[in-house]
Amino acid sequence: MAEYNSLPLVCAAEQFAKLPGIGMKTAQRLAYFMLNQPVEDVEEFASEILKARKSVKCCKTCQNFTERDECAICDDERRNQKVICVVEAPKDVSAIERTGGFTGVYHVLHGLLSPIDNIGPQDIRITELMTRLSGDVDEVIMATNPTVEGEATATYISRMIKPMGIKVTRLAYGLPAGSALEYADDVTLQRALENRNEL
Amino acid sequence: MAEYNSLPLVCAAEQFAKLPGIGMKTAQRLAYFMLNQPVEDVEEFASEILKARKSVKCCKTCQNFTERDECAICDDERRNQKVICVVEAPKDVSAIERTGGFTGVYHVLHGLLSPIDNIGPQDIRITELMTRLSGDVDEVIMATNPTVEGEATATYISRMIKPMGIKVTRLAYGLPAGSALEYADDVTLQRALENRNEL
Repeated sequence: MAEYNSLPLVCAAEQFAKLPGIGMKTAQRLAYFMLNQPVEDVEEFASEILKARKSVKCCKTCQNFTERDECAICDDERRNQKVICVVEAPKDVSAIERTGGFTGVYHVLHGLLSPIDNIGPQDIRITELMTRLSGDVDEVIMATNPTVEGEATATYISRMIKPMGIKVTRLAYGLPAGSALEYADDVTLQRALENRNEL
Repeated sequence: MAEYNSLPLVCAAEQFAKLPGIGMKTAQRLAYFMLNQPVEDVEEFASEILKARKSVKCCKTCQNFTERDECAICDDERRNQKVICVVEAPKDVSAIERTGGFTGVYHVLHGLLSPIDNIGPQDIRITELMTRLSGDVDEVIMATNPTVEGEATATYISRMIKPMGIKVTRLAYGLPAGSALEYADDVTLQRALENRNEL
């Protein structure tokens, strides 16, 4: 019955459907919503997103998204520049910042090593990290995801860093807060046991 | 910790958060996705949606969204122009069209009567419907939602139409297909009983 849908609606819905986690039904709902908004609001929506994309660049130090040459975190004197937390993507920086418990700086790889997807060391920002390490660095925290690619990337990078005499750490494995033992998978439970702490 | 988030990202996320059903967390995820896309793709996204909003207008007959003067359904000779299905919004037309079981035409009210929100008969497209009824019409199907506002609007309009000698019907109430008796609310179950059909 798509033959009866008006063309502009279909075009708008198709654009929304390209977004992650948005299926065709939600995309159509969003398109209908947009067609009901005042033209000025839709213009603002379109221009703000385009402006964001065009003005954003990678921080020359940590490679995180910023609109300046150096991001607000790298530029902050209160942050400990000697502790570098290595993450896969800018969204991971947001996640760690939300905890409010980290006072060091970051390094965004913009990807993870993945031979199956043909992503090698030259495709992610490892060289930029190594350049930073020639300076005064106390610790590098590998904060990639606990997935196969995240593990492989953490291991690969830690092997490059260790010979430089810099401490390399990895995020702890264990039970997620608020979870139940009976629902934990075997690997998680085994690691929670292995990494048990004295009370 | 928002102080560290780059301004373009925050602006883009705020725009996404204006969409219905998109919270701040999803909005931020969508903004990150956009910042990772090629500039051309983001340009296409922005321009297609804006183009859709600017090119869309209401069909001169049924008030549904279309990019032409008259929509494809009203313009289709195979559709029965004597049976008009009255709905609240363009998305309801899509929903009924998906069933493939309706061969008449539509009338989109673009709203429902709602005294609490100060929406009266002059705020929705009732006059346009009445104008159509002066022509050759066999039946008007009130297909507004089974909510308080939907009921009130259906009743209000049917009272205006009945004196004209045109048949007015209402969508059937009953159990949703695939549901279970035990989970049906009292009103639904009561109506399913009242409107029982002979087998």
